[in-house]
Amino acid sequence: MNGAQSLVQTLINGGVDVCFTNPGTSEIHFVAACDQVAGMRTVLGLFEGVCTGAADGYARMLGKPAATLVHLGPGLGNGLANLHNARRANSPVISIVGEHATYHVQHDAPLTTDIESIARSVSGWVRTSQSAAAVPTDGAEAIAAAMMPPGQVATLILPGDCCWNESVAPQPKPEFPKPAAVDPKTIDEIAAVLRKGEPTVLLLAGQLMLEKGLRLAGRIARASGARIIGQRVNGRSQRGAGRVVISRLPYPVPPALEMLKGTTRLILAGSKPPVSFFAWPNMPNWLTPDGCRIHTLSEPHEDGVGAFEALADLIGAPAEPEEVYKLDRPPLPTGELTAGKIWQALVALMPEEAIISDEGVTSSRDADKWTTTAPPHDWLNVTGGAIGQGMPVATGAAVACPDRKVFSMEADGSGMYTLQSLWTQAREQLDVVTVIFSNRAYKILFGELKRVGVEEAGPNASAMFSLSQPDINWVKLAQGMGVHGMRAETCEQFNKYLEAAIQSKGPHLIEAVI
Amino acid sequence: MNGAQSLVQTLINGGVDVCFTNPGTSEIHFVAACDQVAGMRTVLGLFEGVCTGAADGYARMLGKPAATLVHLGPGLGNGLANLHNARRANSPVISIVGEHATYHVQHDAPLTTDIESIARSVSGWVRTSQSAAAVPTDGAEAIAAAMMPPGQVATLILPGDCCWNESVAPQPKPEFPKPAAVDPKTIDEIAAVLRKGEPTVLLLAGQLMLEKGLRLAGRIARASGARIIGQRVNGRSQRGAGRVVISRLPYPVPPALEMLKGTTRLILAGSKPPVSFFAWPNMPNWLTPDGCRIHTLSEPHEDGVGAFEALADLIGAPAEPEEVYKLDRPPLPTGELTAGKIWQALVALMPEEAIISDEGVTSSRDADKWTTTAPPHDWLNVTGGAIGQGMPVATGAAVACPDRKVFSMEADGSGMYTLQSLWTQAREQLDVVTVIFSNRAYKILFGELKRVGVEEAGPNASAMFSLSQPDINWVKLAQGMGVHGMRAETCEQFNKYLEAAIQSKGPHLIEAVI
Repeated sequence: MNGAQSLVQTLINGGVDVCFTNPGTSEIHFVAACDQVAGMRTVLGLFEGVCTGAADGYARMLGKPAATLVHLGPGLGNGLANLHNARRANSPVISIVGEHATYHVQHDAPLTTDIESIARSVSGWVRTSQSAAAVPTDGAEAIAAAMMPPGQVATLILPGDCCWNESVAPQPKPEFPKPAAVDPKTIDEIAAVLRKGEPTVLLLAGQLMLEKGLRLAGRIARASGARIIGQRVNGRSQRGAGRVVISRLPYPVPPALEMLKGTTRLILAGSKPPVSFFAWPNMPNWLTPDGCRIHTLSEPHEDGVGAFEALADLIGAPAEPEEVYKLDRPPLPTGELTAGKIWQALVALMPEEAIISDEGVTSSRDADKWTTTAPPHDWLNVTGGAIGQGMPVATGAAVACPDRKVFSMEADGSGMYTLQSLWTQAREQLDVVTVIFSNRAYKILFGELKRVGVEEAGPNASAMFSLSQPDINWVKLAQGMGVHGMRAETCEQFNKYLEAAIQSKGPHLIEAVI
Repeated sequence: MNGAQSLVQTLINGGVDVCFTNPGTSEIHFVAACDQVAGMRTVLGLFEGVCTGAADGYARMLGKPAATLVHLGPGLGNGLANLHNARRANSPVISIVGEHATYHVQHDAPLTTDIESIARSVSGWVRTSQSAAAVPTDGAEAIAAAMMPPGQVATLILPGDCCWNESVAPQPKPEFPKPAAVDPKTIDEIAAVLRKGEPTVLLLAGQLMLEKGLRLAGRIARASGARIIGQRVNGRSQRGAGRVVISRLPYPVPPALEMLKGTTRLILAGSKPPVSFFAWPNMPNWLTPDGCRIHTLSEPHEDGVGAFEALADLIGAPAEPEEVYKLDRPPLPTGELTAGKIWQALVALMPEEAIISDEGVTSSRDADKWTTTAPPHDWLNVTGGAIGQGMPVATGAAVACPDRKVFSMEADGSGMYTLQSLWTQAREQLDVVTVIFSNRAYKILFGELKRVGVEEAGPNASAMFSLSQPDINWVKLAQGMGVHGMRAETCEQFNKYLEAAIQSKGPHLIEAVI
């Protein structure tokens, strides 16, 4: 058994049985091993950002890693932005990067790069295998590292000769580290804070944005009078009818400050102290009000749900939260198509347990207004601010959950970064409906320009923020990659196409011209 | 004048007047400054790899840097593969990376990344500006660093507040460092080696692959009997009728060994000792024959042309090289379309002084056979082995040389990495003819699989190396981005479309199904 074969078997033993790949010569033995060892599903992406984003989406839905396989430093570079997003989502990912044979690196052949330095910027764990015999152990440790709570990117750099030389037996499934329990003293302290009855906010993130955590938060809020607010971006949150009512911190600074105004106690539950996404001139970037005290109930790597359970008991929380969202499907929209009406139509038509990958950017501003009362669904945010995530994450979520409908709600500017995702959706016949908000602009940047005091965009800025001249034809782009594409210019067209796409299995794209 | 304005003026003063951009919020002041200060041409790419590859192509043709402008670590990641290629081409590039405001980095907001570590993997010079007042000096030093012979990537990381705060006056054009002269003693030693009359190879790279250097090499070869061989991949080489006859080291190891067999003296002229592109099992990776002595005439950063001039004088080289290629346009091909016939048709029809960006991979195997006798032209290789370079480099070369026809000869697999280039070509109405060798496979990988001893690709390998299921429709992809697209399935169709594309200005794409 060579190194590659022993690694593939080790991955399968550890439950890692999907590999999103864009291989080259140095990964050839790994690919061959996927035929020589049974049980690994390989999914091809035509660009590495598709692979890494898909692994992120897969991990968010299943809580376990897929592997990615890319070609030396440049392949890793191409996948880096979505590994950055995966890092911010705390997604477990096994990032396997092919490398020159150990004895070849010294010669500085054209593809030689400092892979470790690039990998470290996004990884919690990085190792370069030193021999074929070390590879299965390295693989098992990579799995355990990826599963280290709350989840992280583990990068295994694999020199060619470590793949082709004779290795040793595969490793069994490694022990997965469990999240650390929160110290009972901390829970006592937080209970004491809540009992004071001051204006208090519970700021939620991570696991606590899923149904169980939200429900506990709602019970604690009911008992204590604290407000519950979600971190702005979350790897995965569960929303819609039956879920606890919660706000999210807004992106612009003024309404975020307004939301936290008057708060004297901020309790972090898997979250970090809230700061603005960017700093802007003459604008605060620290969002907590002056004099507000910050308390930490649970760190991201700790068992936040367990801490909430103990806290709810301690303060005698009632069995039910105060308020949950009720199902309220709006009527189908009519007339002129707008971003808001697209969300309205989606809520009118979407099935239960849908997965929404949201990269609508400015077109998602009205999303909350409509979707909170939608049937229960999962929501996947752009966690690291690196656009080009939405379509790959949707792709991976669809691989993870073949029985659920995935909606990829995508800004046109963001979509262009990793449009190759559509081809993978076509090849794998994934059940993804992509909606392109086609406003033909990096619309957010016009807003940002105003935010820094330029009222009127000049010719260079106008050109740099516009996606017209020429207009992008998303229907042709979809068809070019084997995905059924439609263009909607009115609500009536959009409703009809969306309904048809929901009724049939497999990938569809609707270019919604707004 | 704020930091961004002073930087833009400093760049213009230094001759850097083109910026390939994909900006975000942290780059907004730079974009605004391009309207407030006259003289900067901004070119939008819808993916950062387009911008960095275009800057590489621009630099190869003009020998001076363009700027790129990208958004924090993830934007740099997206552009990294083509900066890697630029590094291998020794192209001067000013890579400007927006960063959070200096006081915001500590808060670890979602987009925060270790930009310097990522940048160092491809840059000869990296600096993060510390204040608005420092920005113009940093900009001028970046230009000088990029122009440090033989040329390199200089990365300037620009925190938001360094752009928006009040700065100082722009810097004038910096002094450009000149290539160091080769020590006359070294030239004497090489002359002595040549006079021995042993089987000697002059291995050329860099500037020596351009007309002047080639001609000198041809004269030295004629006087000494040495053979001249070019490094396999070169940022830019000048070829075709009237240029000196030269071989290039092949990619596969056996013919490369064969080419160097019997050589007892290898003289490096701007080149490195030849090694194989990858290491393969049971195959040598060091290509120089046993016992062959290696001598260095000039390092890449030295004045290789000057050294050749001195050497030619010293050994009394004749005024003319022995052999130059003669113009020989083949007849137009007929019948079934093949990769070789596409090159044949190109040579039959191409105008003088064309620029060829070659990312044909396996489809370029027959390129040399046809193109050496083509009208004089420039040839741009994938220098760092990171595919996805060809179309961006063609884009940048067309911006640099608006009066020359650019042919972007592109494998379908490679083309999919940075297909967004087509949109930039359409917006800027660049005179680029893209030919897609549509063989619907990563064909090279089937060969690599055989090279490691797997005769028959299994189902996983077959699926991972195939670009069919679904077939990619390049005509629709081109049209989707505003580029005129055509599909050719016979030589007759291809000839007709190619001729039409050559006759008209502006971007065209021909999908050649082979």
